[in-house]
Amino acid sequence: MADRVTVDVVVVGAGLAGLSAARALIAQDKTVVVLEARDRVGGRVHGQTLSDGETVVEVGGQWIGPGQHRMIRLSNELGLERFPTYNEGDNLLRFGEKQGRYEGAIPKISPLTLADMGVAQMRLDRLARQVPLETPWTARRAERWDSMTFETWIVRNARTEKARSLLRLYSEAVFAAEAKDFSLLHALYYTHSGGGVDALAGVKDGAQQDRYVGGSQRMPMRMAEDLGDDVVRLSAPVRRIEQRADVVTVLADGVLVTARHVIVAIPPVLAGRIDYDPALPGHRDQLTQRVPAGSVIKCNVVYDSPFWRADGLTGQATGDEGPVKVVFDNSPPSGSPGVLLAFLEGENARILNRASADDRRAAVVAGLVRFFGPKAAAVTEYVELDWSEEQWTRGCYGAHFPCGVWTQYGPALREPCGRIHWAGAETATIWSGYMDGALQSGARAATEIIAAS
Amino acid sequence: MADRVTVDVVVVGAGLAGLSAARALIAQDKTVVVLEARDRVGGRVHGQTLSDGETVVEVGGQWIGPGQHRMIRLSNELGLERFPTYNEGDNLLRFGEKQGRYEGAIPKISPLTLADMGVAQMRLDRLARQVPLETPWTARRAERWDSMTFETWIVRNARTEKARSLLRLYSEAVFAAEAKDFSLLHALYYTHSGGGVDALAGVKDGAQQDRYVGGSQRMPMRMAEDLGDDVVRLSAPVRRIEQRADVVTVLADGVLVTARHVIVAIPPVLAGRIDYDPALPGHRDQLTQRVPAGSVIKCNVVYDSPFWRADGLTGQATGDEGPVKVVFDNSPPSGSPGVLLAFLEGENARILNRASADDRRAAVVAGLVRFFGPKAAAVTEYVELDWSEEQWTRGCYGAHFPCGVWTQYGPALREPCGRIHWAGAETATIWSGYMDGALQSGARAATEIIAAS
Repeated sequence: MADRVTVDVVVVGAGLAGLSAARALIAQDKTVVVLEARDRVGGRVHGQTLSDGETVVEVGGQWIGPGQHRMIRLSNELGLERFPTYNEGDNLLRFGEKQGRYEGAIPKISPLTLADMGVAQMRLDRLARQVPLETPWTARRAERWDSMTFETWIVRNARTEKARSLLRLYSEAVFAAEAKDFSLLHALYYTHSGGGVDALAGVKDGAQQDRYVGGSQRMPMRMAEDLGDDVVRLSAPVRRIEQRADVVTVLADGVLVTARHVIVAIPPVLAGRIDYDPALPGHRDQLTQRVPAGSVIKCNVVYDSPFWRADGLTGQATGDEGPVKVVFDNSPPSGSPGVLLAFLEGENARILNRASADDRRAAVVAGLVRFFGPKAAAVTEYVELDWSEEQWTRGCYGAHFPCGVWTQYGPALREPCGRIHWAGAETATIWSGYMDGALQSGARAATEIIAAS
Repeated sequence: MADRVTVDVVVVGAGLAGLSAARALIAQDKTVVVLEARDRVGGRVHGQTLSDGETVVEVGGQWIGPGQHRMIRLSNELGLERFPTYNEGDNLLRFGEKQGRYEGAIPKISPLTLADMGVAQMRLDRLARQVPLETPWTARRAERWDSMTFETWIVRNARTEKARSLLRLYSEAVFAAEAKDFSLLHALYYTHSGGGVDALAGVKDGAQQDRYVGGSQRMPMRMAEDLGDDVVRLSAPVRRIEQRADVVTVLADGVLVTARHVIVAIPPVLAGRIDYDPALPGHRDQLTQRVPAGSVIKCNVVYDSPFWRADGLTGQATGDEGPVKVVFDNSPPSGSPGVLLAFLEGENARILNRASADDRRAAVVAGLVRFFGPKAAAVTEYVELDWSEEQWTRGCYGAHFPCGVWTQYGPALREPCGRIHWAGAETATIWSGYMDGALQSGARAATEIIAAS
């Protein structure tokens, strides 16, 4: 027999979007229940504790950077401490068999490649600023930009193979998708939303600048603690949402909630898998058929110590050959143990998703040895998460928009369907797809409801 | 209390794919139950009876043509009669304000446009033949073809605006999607699967050559009659599929079926919305996030008589300006009443989905008046179906593959997940997306199970 609850607002999903919506509504004296499918909060923000019983490694969203004001304000409120991503020494850059070291943001590559890349990036940033963040489909050249893939643009606008490789790496590292998977318009929208290529890709002054002591998951955990167990119901996947003239009824495993409004704060694909009565309008339903999640496997590889630091390396490495193309130092503030974070992204995540766990680990460690030498083979622990296997996420970092989707379905992304409101990092305008965007989306959905009630 | 049934095979979906699978399995002495969400069989094949209580107009898949051997064989077995699509007289072709008449398949357009279109079509057909139908991702240039949209190819390969318009019309009429919505590789695969551009787009000798007396829905209805009410369970949407070592359990509204195998014979997006236990592999789940259904509203506009025939017209009309770009004579064999079938496809369907029913009807009738003159305003009855609004289809004619999907997720389309087998027109290799392809897919899934048992 399901528990029956009546509140003002029911929120589906206890990620940052849902939790921040609940927080905002409670601050306005609304009663709220948050229904979470998993037995934990945080959604795409998640940490795992190593066998030492102490060290947390992050397998989901983790970094914050300048311009992410909502994250900074809220984490200060919650008393969370930040520390800088380890960034002392040289970075590694590898093309094929050739590996070089460089300091700072500008890699040591030939002047020709550097100029080619510089011009392409400048163009990308300039076009990105022409995309209105609230309504990307109204950009003057939206039709043209939504008719071609980002890959088509790259091949046309970068002349050297190395610059093309770097732009494809931007796609993989920032979108967890290949440049062929989404439209140029989406690339521009997302780039604008995060403040430009350097802001999105960078460590110092960029989106990877800082980390949270104890892991970013402390934020959703503290938020859920503040809300309390009566508000946040775990292990309650939502199966059905019924909407009548002045009421919504949300049926989850073990609990039935009646409310005036519902905020669906999960990725659009998963929102499309809930059974709605009446069924959602065709336009909204078809949007949820068209915005797939990216593909990433985050692999934390643990060592006795961060040996690369002694070699004068930051731990940051980039290469044009997979499966490991992007690496960061992900050690805790103490620097012990040493942790390298290897990303498998886009096609490499899709291929290694189908490999055995042993083969995948071996491929990741081999990739690190290639960058950092034989010391990288002395692994003490290995913690990975393949987000495509997570039943209640089904891919990270977020959704990307293939060609044709923004121009034909854009308005359906945030437009409420009666008493059903949409949140989640995909629905943000600033820092779309990021933790900061998730907070924005939750606040915006809460505001919609306050305005309507 | 749900009815409990135990059979050898449970089939999800009573469209042509599911019904043909059931038919094949029963012929091999297997016991079968088919679970259908709707209160009717046929899925995307559906007719509606006009107010005369007799005339059936088709709002779903309706035509068959040469090379569709499975359809011809089965409809002969079932005793269904065919008749030719009305094709006597001239066709209309309209560019902007200029409308012309022509006879046969070759429109009366300037030699320049004709040559431009001819060269582009020849190239398209030649490339299409290079795509292996079982494994499109193994085409020699698959990577390149899957990295660009069909629209990008059109702009590069057709020089005149009219030829470009005709190629975009091919996209809308055959895929119910815009040329920007899917990859060149998908355009080539689908074109090859249906035997070439002329075969797909044509009436005489093409996929629109013949119709069924009484409507194509007679085929699934007869198949369901043969199977009987014990086998085909209507109004039983499947919510959950549990798979254990040697058994599957399928939970539908009102009935719980235990079987050795299950065939999921519904479009891939809808297959992705069922709750699976254990959850499906990430690779398969991510495929179902990436293959959206097209957008079409089929509008049957009824007149006292087929007045266009007296004017020497076939009733077939094509134009480059929407919302009505493609029209056919859809009258019953008697020619009374007269019925024009106006298609709203791709972006026009998406836009008019959001209009009121009255505004949509007015736009359709205005479109017909533009082609056929003021007589087209004397409408006696109007029957439309917007497939995006159909909860248990969510778009027609079928799924299209955006850029990057065939090359990165192709193998997941048909590969069984343990005891779960996949059917549906999207999984066909010959006449993919067509009624004939649905039959092929059902037969193939049945064969997989016979081979495994």
